[in-house]
Amino acid sequence: MTTTPLTHIVDPHRLKSLPANEIPALAGQIRHFLVEKVCRAGGHLGPNLGVVELTIALHRVFDSPRDRIIFDTGHQSYVHKILTGRQQEFDSLRVAGGLAGYPQRAESEHDHVENSHASTSLAWADGLAKAQQLRGETDRRVVAVIGDGALTGGLAWESLNNLGGSGRPVIVVLNDNGRSYDPTIGGLAEHLGALRSGAASGRNLFHTMGFLYLGPIDGHDVRATETALRHARELNQPVVVHCVTEKGRGYTHAENDEADRMHGIGVLNPATGTGKAGGAPSWTSLFGRHITELAETRPDLVALTAAMLRPVGLHRFAQRFPDRIFDVGIAEQHAVTSAAGLAMGGLHPVVCLYATFLNRAIDQVLMDVALHQLPVTFVLDRAGITGPDGPSHHGVWDLALLGQVPGMRVASPRDPVELAALLAEAVDDPGPTALRFPKAAAGPAIKARNRMDGMDVLYRGEHTPLDVLIVSAGVLAEPALQAAALLEQDGLGVTVVDPRWLLPINPTLVHLAARHRLVVTVEDGVRTGGLGTALAQACGAAGVRTPVDNLGVPPAFLDHGARGDILAACGLDAESIAEAARANLGSTPVPHPSRLEGVLQ
Amino acid sequence: MTTTPLTHIVDPHRLKSLPANEIPALAGQIRHFLVEKVCRAGGHLGPNLGVVELTIALHRVFDSPRDRIIFDTGHQSYVHKILTGRQQEFDSLRVAGGLAGYPQRAESEHDHVENSHASTSLAWADGLAKAQQLRGETDRRVVAVIGDGALTGGLAWESLNNLGGSGRPVIVVLNDNGRSYDPTIGGLAEHLGALRSGAASGRNLFHTMGFLYLGPIDGHDVRATETALRHARELNQPVVVHCVTEKGRGYTHAENDEADRMHGIGVLNPATGTGKAGGAPSWTSLFGRHITELAETRPDLVALTAAMLRPVGLHRFAQRFPDRIFDVGIAEQHAVTSAAGLAMGGLHPVVCLYATFLNRAIDQVLMDVALHQLPVTFVLDRAGITGPDGPSHHGVWDLALLGQVPGMRVASPRDPVELAALLAEAVDDPGPTALRFPKAAAGPAIKARNRMDGMDVLYRGEHTPLDVLIVSAGVLAEPALQAAALLEQDGLGVTVVDPRWLLPINPTLVHLAARHRLVVTVEDGVRTGGLGTALAQACGAAGVRTPVDNLGVPPAFLDHGARGDILAACGLDAESIAEAARANLGSTPVPHPSRLEGVLQ
Repeated sequence: MTTTPLTHIVDPHRLKSLPANEIPALAGQIRHFLVEKVCRAGGHLGPNLGVVELTIALHRVFDSPRDRIIFDTGHQSYVHKILTGRQQEFDSLRVAGGLAGYPQRAESEHDHVENSHASTSLAWADGLAKAQQLRGETDRRVVAVIGDGALTGGLAWESLNNLGGSGRPVIVVLNDNGRSYDPTIGGLAEHLGALRSGAASGRNLFHTMGFLYLGPIDGHDVRATETALRHARELNQPVVVHCVTEKGRGYTHAENDEADRMHGIGVLNPATGTGKAGGAPSWTSLFGRHITELAETRPDLVALTAAMLRPVGLHRFAQRFPDRIFDVGIAEQHAVTSAAGLAMGGLHPVVCLYATFLNRAIDQVLMDVALHQLPVTFVLDRAGITGPDGPSHHGVWDLALLGQVPGMRVASPRDPVELAALLAEAVDDPGPTALRFPKAAAGPAIKARNRMDGMDVLYRGEHTPLDVLIVSAGVLAEPALQAAALLEQDGLGVTVVDPRWLLPINPTLVHLAARHRLVVTVEDGVRTGGLGTALAQACGAAGVRTPVDNLGVPPAFLDHGARGDILAACGLDAESIAEAARANLGSTPVPHPSRLEGVLQ
Repeated sequence: MTTTPLTHIVDPHRLKSLPANEIPALAGQIRHFLVEKVCRAGGHLGPNLGVVELTIALHRVFDSPRDRIIFDTGHQSYVHKILTGRQQEFDSLRVAGGLAGYPQRAESEHDHVENSHASTSLAWADGLAKAQQLRGETDRRVVAVIGDGALTGGLAWESLNNLGGSGRPVIVVLNDNGRSYDPTIGGLAEHLGALRSGAASGRNLFHTMGFLYLGPIDGHDVRATETALRHARELNQPVVVHCVTEKGRGYTHAENDEADRMHGIGVLNPATGTGKAGGAPSWTSLFGRHITELAETRPDLVALTAAMLRPVGLHRFAQRFPDRIFDVGIAEQHAVTSAAGLAMGGLHPVVCLYATFLNRAIDQVLMDVALHQLPVTFVLDRAGITGPDGPSHHGVWDLALLGQVPGMRVASPRDPVELAALLAEAVDDPGPTALRFPKAAAGPAIKARNRMDGMDVLYRGEHTPLDVLIVSAGVLAEPALQAAALLEQDGLGVTVVDPRWLLPINPTLVHLAARHRLVVTVEDGVRTGGLGTALAQACGAAGVRTPVDNLGVPPAFLDHGARGDILAACGLDAESIAEAARANLGSTPVPHPSRLEGVLQ
């Protein structure tokens, strides 16, 4: 038997002409390629190992890009990238200027939706199918590939309701591996389990909602999967093809990883499946330790995660307090409103989310938590620039959005000592609070010179009069202090303050501003909202006319790259902060945005 | 047979002791009371007429407030208010300081959740039930009363998934009247229809998701409803009680109203069911006319509504172009993402929402529409202060939120002429756009003195030098012009500009600001974000040091009241605008917020 080398598959049409008996060997080559490349660069391994055969079958049955294949969440599109002419680019996976970790239209005509917030694919498919119908494009099909985890998100339900019985030819490929990071939760997961095992006794969610249903199919059997997909394509109706797959399939170290089947990995040795240990602890792990300690003496503390127990550091808490942890599925809205219910019921919930996913539930923060003035603490991991995951994962909107929520207090710790202190303050607060910290190793403690009305003065310069007040948010205290040293070398009098609680603005900060010639605010969120904007407005309202220069992330979608590089490109390194201050004192407007080429989408 | 007068029912316990044969007469009294009071004041009539017997049954079976009854959306809580000691207050329904149109904790210990964004009740119930379980409050029950319309919202699905099979004693009362405003859409509606008619052939969504199911019950049969609820209370499990009710029941004019069964009404003559006609057309109806006209020559225009066809003015469009209108259910997230799909498919979707409900989908606006730079137009009705519907219905967050969306352009027409012009510009734009207008009758045209780089100069004063630049958003042009006249009387030189496109900031506005001593921005959104904040920041970044005073709605939850009164209390009337300018020119800081007593929650 001949075997076609993977390198010969330069587009999906080449794949179509391959004899069926060559497919298992091809799948093996793809798995080998994936393990080698992803272990070298880091990225999403388990999800892609699980969809090798499914993706091959999709491209053999459908005619991409005429038929549109939409990957929900998008981190399982590596095999799709391999099969659509991007093998060579895998050496630059997730590095600046290189291959994105999600579909990206700029890369290929086979990518349509740059998804990576979950549960959107069915809504995209609904819109695309409606457009195709109105434009008379009857030969096109829309295929949405969605995991069982993403089906727990409310947007997916809204779309099932719209698609069901619509008569439009949308093919929903349910990639059911029983997990998001963790095993999928709730009534849906139990139902899918029953469908998989044949114990559903005729019950079928998808029938109920007006879909045709094909399955369950072994998603690692290309022939069976192809047959089902061909059938689905001909039905010309909304249909669910239920494919059962195994996350991490074919790579022993992933298959044996009980935690998350190597969902997302750092750099690993592919032979051993292990990476470098050691180094400073992450903010995530420090938070996990502190919240567990606090819960020992606070029986009212409960914690919530939206399908990301380990990624937000709640693993230890869950082991210690199994009754007080709630995984609600990929369902940020429910996380927030059920937390409001828990708080109304007399507990203090801590809702742990990635900062970027808070966007999903800002209405619930506003209308359920804040309007009812309830003591809910939000812990926002991956706040600020995250790095290799790109535009949808940077946590740069949370400060701007939370700044609009009445009664919400937002803190950002600059070091591990402050993390413990601010978390304790947050869970003692009778109203809504939020803490934000980055995806990074925590740095060493940065001691305050003195505390003033709840804020930490980190530096007070030798030179008088007072020229520049630098107000820094969280971990940006470090470049702020370095910038102060540079400015002091120029003979300028500099003060550096960490407000600790960034929002609402501490009134003492306005008084401090009045005693300087210039205020520079430094934050790793969009500079059109958040700390700087609020301080400028507070100064204006108080009649303080000191100019307030807001440094932050530009209001734009930032591409993937190394975290430090992106921060520097946004002007959030020491030298840029110092430059901004110098330019402003010289009455030269600061050029915004600075050095953003290659970072802006 | 004796009949207990309604006035004797001063709390729910009195209701419990009533003999069953007196209930129909009581229900009749309640309907009479509702029709009389709501026709006098305006408010939600149809939904409340539909839940008379259901609410009586709830209070006879459960022990409120120990058992917590949560009304989804909350506008169907009038009967609950009548039965919990608030009959006397119905003469002040929805007026400032009077009875709220939604549950309100300040009014009664029987109100828990001040809902009025849909689909939240199941999440509240989940949180409350978890808290009760952890605190060992085994004798309490949580009852969520949710309509079939609200079940189409994604948050409800997330909660069904969490509740199903949880084992916690949550009773979901499905108030199935087949409608939100319009008939409920989608696969769910068809399934509920099959359950109602017995044609579901054993299929049952709620069984599938792990619930016990009781029903269908005639929700107007108190005895049957009580029996089902008592059964549900004893089951100590998550259970759905499927009650079939009729919106508008018992009031002929509502029953015969094909449009929306008198969902929400203005002041009416209860005998005829008719109100005052005439007066200036509303913004909503003008929009409905313009979008339909535009669609005649633009076959790519399609429109979307989230279960509010008539309230957003799309009725005429739907009649004219039945293939190009999409009602997606109470599903703002799906509306936005499916619109992104429609746009990617080559059409220009116009998504019509109440401004306050845009909060629900800001992540989809950001990640689906804006990240993909798609031509979707959002039309935000009920923007600004809405009046009698209270804190959750004021459309005061949209400008602040949309201001954070890269590439989004936001316009606000000041008069009907501008509405037509700006709508035409919006649907010609290759990127995302939004238009916002208030819940009000449109005023007369306000002619511009001249157009300058896309902005309208409405007034340029006689006095020089130039003192005050007033920048007004949309309909606030009128008080801005009146304020200008007041300031001119003081001998000040005033310019009034309507930027038309509020966001992003027109660079010419910054140049204009530089030529005045003071800028005053006037907008009916939170003054912590939006036009004023963005202009102040743009001036700062350009080195323009003219003080920018931001007038707007305070960042707080504003109670219900008359629209004009609330605007004045927020300092957005002519006299307050003029006062703010005078105070600022005199270097006296403007007191914020002004005259807000009785408006702030």
